[in-house]
Amino acid sequence: MKLAKTYSFLKKDLSLIEDALEETVYADQPVLHEASTQLLKAGGKRLRPIFVLLASKFGDYNINRIKNVASSLELIHMASLVHDDVIDDSDIRRGKPTVKANWDNQVAMLTGDFMFAKALQQFTDIDQPRAHQILAKTMMELTIGEIEQIKDKYNLDQNLRVYLRRIKRKTALLISSSCQLGAIVANTDRETEKALYRYGYFMGMSYQIIDDILDFTASEKELGKPAGSDLIQGNITLPVLYAMENRTIRQELKNAFADSSNVSPNLLRPIISKISKSDAITKAREVSDQYLQKAYDSLSLLPDIQAKEALANIANYIGNRKI
Amino acid sequence: MKLAKTYSFLKKDLSLIEDALEETVYADQPVLHEASTQLLKAGGKRLRPIFVLLASKFGDYNINRIKNVASSLELIHMASLVHDDVIDDSDIRRGKPTVKANWDNQVAMLTGDFMFAKALQQFTDIDQPRAHQILAKTMMELTIGEIEQIKDKYNLDQNLRVYLRRIKRKTALLISSSCQLGAIVANTDRETEKALYRYGYFMGMSYQIIDDILDFTASEKELGKPAGSDLIQGNITLPVLYAMENRTIRQELKNAFADSSNVSPNLLRPIISKISKSDAITKAREVSDQYLQKAYDSLSLLPDIQAKEALANIANYIGNRKI
Repeated sequence: MKLAKTYSFLKKDLSLIEDALEETVYADQPVLHEASTQLLKAGGKRLRPIFVLLASKFGDYNINRIKNVASSLELIHMASLVHDDVIDDSDIRRGKPTVKANWDNQVAMLTGDFMFAKALQQFTDIDQPRAHQILAKTMMELTIGEIEQIKDKYNLDQNLRVYLRRIKRKTALLISSSCQLGAIVANTDRETEKALYRYGYFMGMSYQIIDDILDFTASEKELGKPAGSDLIQGNITLPVLYAMENRTIRQELKNAFADSSNVSPNLLRPIISKISKSDAITKAREVSDQYLQKAYDSLSLLPDIQAKEALANIANYIGNRKI
Repeated sequence: MKLAKTYSFLKKDLSLIEDALEETVYADQPVLHEASTQLLKAGGKRLRPIFVLLASKFGDYNINRIKNVASSLELIHMASLVHDDVIDDSDIRRGKPTVKANWDNQVAMLTGDFMFAKALQQFTDIDQPRAHQILAKTMMELTIGEIEQIKDKYNLDQNLRVYLRRIKRKTALLISSSCQLGAIVANTDRETEKALYRYGYFMGMSYQIIDDILDFTASEKELGKPAGSDLIQGNITLPVLYAMENRTIRQELKNAFADSSNVSPNLLRPIISKISKSDAITKAREVSDQYLQKAYDSLSLLPDIQAKEALANIANYIGNRKI
């Protein structure tokens, strides 16, 4: 089943959000406008807006009120991606050159700042202080997640807990906040809001773990960048943590990372290939599946409306996606 | 007269804000905590919080409500400085190494992001949508100002209008917003709010022009960085625009900037010295004085309270400051 089909009833509203996003990133400063538009057009599944809309369906759904929240969260997501590319020194994302590659780090930094500011602007007509608190906290945790990622780079001595905390900050919280904010703005009761938050959190954890798995198992064409890019950039993800239970792989990685300022992709390629075929992938998938199950479970408390089915279908899609 | 004496009646409240700032930048992530604290301790006159407090004195002054607005604006200011240092590749500010010098560009970028997010968090308990709109717009204009600064670097064909628009975005708007937000949060009437906004705007313009003059006329010791740093970094400020009315200087600058990727400070030093002794300085000061006068004029509509005297004194101090 195609992902888009599960939420085809949102089609009209999602195209309104797309229009809003295009309008939002307009700037009379050409560089900013072009860089932001490039980011916007680079694609992406618009998962965060979809989660906002679906969560809102459990309360007083008002597209005019909700669309700004939805576009705001997508802008924050894109801003964090463009800053992420500066951190990871990435020239390519989803098969296309990044802003930092087309311009430079400085333009990428400012494009992110611009989109953050635009995200706030979209959010200003929301009069619920709790919504603002959640947005600010999410942005802060995103940043702390990024700093943790830098700090933990090339560090082979990190454990599962450190990894899970990092992906919670980097990915899961923005998705859980999307669900929670959709609920808050639609004035659902607190139980519903909590169930949606939990769904988003577990969904986000599973999503990132699958992402980290695909970085090993998908092809360069599917990824739009070389397989194993995470590891080459020094990011130690769940498959690597499990793979290092094998002493040989651990030692090989230690050797490859001996000088973190000069890591050879050629030295890493056979290790990446080994990990991609190892049971580390199965183990990582099991962890993802546990989160996915929890995401399904969180839905059980919610009424049986179309949006609930869509959320379950998205979980199913994410859990089985090949890219 | 010492600047601090003009607002000594705010001393207790300012120290509350200082405590709030220190508390705010706490992060359990050591790098973020250290970098933010370094920025905080690097000094600064805390002008923006002072403007917030003084503006609030024209309405219902409630320090518990206002202190978060004040610290929020200082955090945005500091976040913009640390991103500014990445743009300008500055290793030194106010005589101390910058975050990007002590760590690197990536840490500096994330420290700025962290402080932006903290600024928002401070602001979340303000329930006036207009206040949020102004904050978001100010952050956006700040970013556009930075992009304009990059775009206009080494460009000798810019005119006065371009310069004034840039410093409005880069400096004046954050100061006018500080005054306006202080007024809004204290529920002043709209006329008072407008007068304070105007005061802040003219004050900010004058402040930045003086800053740009001092970059030529103050000593390296006073500046905490070599004189003429702005020009060496390619930033064309008001004294330069006036100095270029002299054809010789214009030609010398053209030669020095012939290859903007390889500008020799040694080639610029005699030009910097020439500008610092030229009538370009006087002309720039005249523009600053005009803004200063408008700042004074804006105060005339306000009631004669202690805060008004303090605002006038600050204008006087800024207009005559030697550093």
